[in-house]
Amino acid sequence: MDDSENKYRILSGISSPDDLRKTDESELGELCSEIREKLIETVSANGGHLASNLGTVELTVALHRSFDTPRDKIIWDVGHQAYTHKLLTGRYNDFSTLRKEGGISGFVRPDESEYDTFYEGHAGTSVSQAAGIAASNKIKGSKNYAVAVIGDGSFGNGLVYEAMNSAGEQGGRLIVVLNDNEMSINESVGGVARHLAVVRSKPEYYRFKANTEKLLNHIPLIGRHLAAFLFKIKTIIKSYLYKSSFFEDIGFRYIGPIDGHDIPTLCEAFDSAKMVDGPTVVHINTVKGKGYDFAEKNPDLYHGVSEFNVYTGQSSADDTNYSAEFGRLLTEFASKDRRICAVTAAMMLGTGLDKFFAAFPDRSFDVGIAEEHAVTFCSGLSAGGLIPVFAVYSTFFQRCVDQIIHDGALQRNKMIIAVDRAGFVGEDGETHQGIFDVSLVEGIPNTTVYSPATYSDLSRSLYNAFYKNENLVIVRYPRGRMPEDFDYECSGDDCEIIGETDADTAVVTYGREFFEVCRAYPELTGSGKKIKIIKLNRIKPLPSEAIEAALDCTEVYFFEEGTVGGGIGERFGLNLAEKEFKGRYLLTGINDEFVPHASVCSLISKYKLDSKSIIKIVSESNSDE
Amino acid sequence: MDDSENKYRILSGISSPDDLRKTDESELGELCSEIREKLIETVSANGGHLASNLGTVELTVALHRSFDTPRDKIIWDVGHQAYTHKLLTGRYNDFSTLRKEGGISGFVRPDESEYDTFYEGHAGTSVSQAAGIAASNKIKGSKNYAVAVIGDGSFGNGLVYEAMNSAGEQGGRLIVVLNDNEMSINESVGGVARHLAVVRSKPEYYRFKANTEKLLNHIPLIGRHLAAFLFKIKTIIKSYLYKSSFFEDIGFRYIGPIDGHDIPTLCEAFDSAKMVDGPTVVHINTVKGKGYDFAEKNPDLYHGVSEFNVYTGQSSADDTNYSAEFGRLLTEFASKDRRICAVTAAMMLGTGLDKFFAAFPDRSFDVGIAEEHAVTFCSGLSAGGLIPVFAVYSTFFQRCVDQIIHDGALQRNKMIIAVDRAGFVGEDGETHQGIFDVSLVEGIPNTTVYSPATYSDLSRSLYNAFYKNENLVIVRYPRGRMPEDFDYECSGDDCEIIGETDADTAVVTYGREFFEVCRAYPELTGSGKKIKIIKLNRIKPLPSEAIEAALDCTEVYFFEEGTVGGGIGERFGLNLAEKEFKGRYLLTGINDEFVPHASVCSLISKYKLDSKSIIKIVSESNSDE
Repeated sequence: MDDSENKYRILSGISSPDDLRKTDESELGELCSEIREKLIETVSANGGHLASNLGTVELTVALHRSFDTPRDKIIWDVGHQAYTHKLLTGRYNDFSTLRKEGGISGFVRPDESEYDTFYEGHAGTSVSQAAGIAASNKIKGSKNYAVAVIGDGSFGNGLVYEAMNSAGEQGGRLIVVLNDNEMSINESVGGVARHLAVVRSKPEYYRFKANTEKLLNHIPLIGRHLAAFLFKIKTIIKSYLYKSSFFEDIGFRYIGPIDGHDIPTLCEAFDSAKMVDGPTVVHINTVKGKGYDFAEKNPDLYHGVSEFNVYTGQSSADDTNYSAEFGRLLTEFASKDRRICAVTAAMMLGTGLDKFFAAFPDRSFDVGIAEEHAVTFCSGLSAGGLIPVFAVYSTFFQRCVDQIIHDGALQRNKMIIAVDRAGFVGEDGETHQGIFDVSLVEGIPNTTVYSPATYSDLSRSLYNAFYKNENLVIVRYPRGRMPEDFDYECSGDDCEIIGETDADTAVVTYGREFFEVCRAYPELTGSGKKIKIIKLNRIKPLPSEAIEAALDCTEVYFFEEGTVGGGIGERFGLNLAEKEFKGRYLLTGINDEFVPHASVCSLISKYKLDSKSIIKIVSESNSDE
Repeated sequence: MDDSENKYRILSGISSPDDLRKTDESELGELCSEIREKLIETVSANGGHLASNLGTVELTVALHRSFDTPRDKIIWDVGHQAYTHKLLTGRYNDFSTLRKEGGISGFVRPDESEYDTFYEGHAGTSVSQAAGIAASNKIKGSKNYAVAVIGDGSFGNGLVYEAMNSAGEQGGRLIVVLNDNEMSINESVGGVARHLAVVRSKPEYYRFKANTEKLLNHIPLIGRHLAAFLFKIKTIIKSYLYKSSFFEDIGFRYIGPIDGHDIPTLCEAFDSAKMVDGPTVVHINTVKGKGYDFAEKNPDLYHGVSEFNVYTGQSSADDTNYSAEFGRLLTEFASKDRRICAVTAAMMLGTGLDKFFAAFPDRSFDVGIAEEHAVTFCSGLSAGGLIPVFAVYSTFFQRCVDQIIHDGALQRNKMIIAVDRAGFVGEDGETHQGIFDVSLVEGIPNTTVYSPATYSDLSRSLYNAFYKNENLVIVRYPRGRMPEDFDYECSGDDCEIIGETDADTAVVTYGREFFEVCRAYPELTGSGKKIKIIKLNRIKPLPSEAIEAALDCTEVYFFEEGTVGGGIGERFGLNLAEKEFKGRYLLTGINDEFVPHASVCSLISKYKLDSKSIIKIVSESNSDE
């Protein structure tokens, strides 16, 4: 028996929830400690979500003990709190591969386990999904439950509200576990958090309601007038104590708030929820980062983390990257222009806006996980004469497309959307890759899109967005940092032609992919070929000089770190065709598939966007002739 | 003085809200009658939204009298209830051009009047927009108000919830007028409606709260025990009576519910709202269709109407159209397959689902104006083993793009989205044209898209969607009806080649545009040219035989009733280029602009998609050679 078996005596013996259900209650405390140790060990080595997973250990144990999984369906909102669920559903042995290429995903994936109901990654989907399963169970006459587990941060998302609103009416065996850790990714924002705080602070009130009723039932009748009055009071008190919550008004039975780290209490609550005929909210309180001191004290720092030293809590990643650069630039612009304000949807740290928020609190808005509102709110700020900048990850940009069209572009108001993590994001996988944003905006009128490669391009793009362009401007940039070995000074112009102007072959690209093309360039030209690089900084509308430069060539290769369908490469090809281009046009990008988790570097190679593939693609085609 | 001046004695004298403010209160009743008459007269002739506008006459008068418009901003959610606002803000004389090409829009448009704050058309945007203006006013030190006017139907939309959640925290001079007519477009759906019903039924409770407090203050003390008890009760009652509403929990002061047809009471409520320092909800009750008997009794039939006879209420439009055909087909499929269910976002009538809902109530879901939830809910139904069909207008399809990606395509669950009103919709204008849906899905993996032209194509597409294709399938079809003179029997195949197979010229198209190409065909071939029509029924993935058929030609013309950017024409061109096509490729579609209101027929001509333009484009290019 080696060390790790000792360390994980109980956990290592659990290969399915059936084993968990057989485990003696007296061993569950020890099991939870083992799980926490395993989580910290793995995340410190592989990176991932720590605080949220440390907070849901007992909850997960209780869920799998109370419910008949996988027939009962547990649906993890966002799916970043399901590591314990993975450990208890047959993935303990492979857990060291967490977030590694070909290994276990950091989110929930049905192709990984029958216990995973949906691919998850975006906030606020769980209640709708569970409501759908509950409705189908009802139609099929099944007695199984659908259980959505959702944090208070996600709970501010509009999709959840729509789902609660609708599901309360529909009925069915639906249980919503509201995992209230008194914070969303940054901190509690918004009125719903305040509403929860009101409810949360009432354990004494919940006890009191029993006592009050007892008292009311035994109160002596002192004259008819007072009696009638008391009867009225009693009715009111009952109605407001028992039906006071918004949840109950919208058709949910409410249980809570209860201690989310107390397994017997949790199981009891789930058992009573199962007795209710109809939708139920079980409101639990947990502590994010529970059991790991550094994470408990700074849960937002430990939300999604890179590898870190388990003893000091020190991360091995640093903060020189596009997000930080964006935040620095925006703060600089805003110090000279009082109209500039910043908006985030619960991603202040991730988008590098922390310095801006500290410097200009009056012009800073964190609206919670509410991307749609963020955009439409910006439309209002803009109509009021300000210049709002909404910083959002590419993958979450998908969540506000109609607002971009209807409340952004159509209004012709000046607003800027800074799209962070555009392109491959790496280990977070399918649900988080930033590969669709370009195709989504390609058809939208009145919109300018920049996709800078370097920090200086980024700076110039923002400058243009503030002072050169009208209407809606999107500035998109990748996750991570510029390559350190890169020493070419980009002009930041909308289009840059690099290399031999009389070349027969053009390689066209934009954004981070430019670095790969530059790496390929020496070898491409080494063979005696004349080659020009056409670097796009502005990708919509396409700079006419880029088309002109390509028309001079007989071969044009477009490399795009994004989906080919509806992307810029298609548009570029059409522009060439309209100008009667008769040469060869070859577009390399992501062809109609979701991109799984792996390092960014590995993904760039996988999709033939690395310098070696570029050399191969351009050379092979050359040699065809 | 002619008849119409007599009829509109007061109204015709009001050319701005200043005039309205000077009008004596005693004349306001008469003014409202005149406005109603004008509304019915105009909508019966031009079509438009009737019931919602009849319900907001007094509200609009009160708003412009109480607020300092246009410095105070009134923001009309959806914007389909703002006809009175138009009549009172200088557009009385042009009102007969309502919804006519070049005339007054049926929605709110800032380029029409300084009193129109935003282009409106989609539900749920107003609170975010108003919150943005209120925030900018606060930053600028302005004392002006931002007033959002929103119906109870829109209030179930997630965007509103996100906005309320965030705005309550932010403060500022924000007033939300909740126009509660106890129905959304079809009827009240969802728990929020129920919550409002609870609040709404409490006028006696609001009176009661004053009486109760009075009583509590004068109650004699009967022994210490009871006194302490009563004190406790008093505290609880106070806290629950005065802070019982969800609105107040999330940071809004609440005023209401009040009679929305009583101008003095409305003005009083707005005046008290203005005294509040911070966000306020003014909850008013109105009757949709107020003052027009037919509309009052059937407000959903009179939501958006075609021209109708003002005396009989009879519409001149009939119900033979794609929506009705879709509803008929779906009901037929569902009668043989118990897995099929239907979902609508408050558009049961508009999408032709009424027969399905009547036939299969257990498998019918109206989720309210909640397109995001509709899609994610379908994902749950699908995971539960059913085959959900969500019918939604193209313009509202824009509102659930991330759900299509993340909860639809990625999950590989079988679900169908029926996209109605794809392409030009005509008089509803910019906000309602269905020209973006194709470009939005073009980049999404695991997705099949059909764009049938004829009813038989529609039937075949639905059959394929149910029984041939996996995963997410989108079937899109236009507003209105098939041309009556069309007698070619389409095969419903993914791709049909019509005309001369050895032709040098190919005309490629899909959807309704096929009819225009057919109309052009005789004249195109009459000149001796050999021409083939490549008709796409499946537009994603592109049928390979379509590409092959085009590769045989030297000239390929693609006509697309949709945005060119990110559309199918670009993709088709790229496919040709990849196969080394060296001929001429010309794509005609909508180039990077929003499409204003006009008849569908007129828009088809405007964008050179009518048969005459097709003839011109194809012939001119031919004669170039």
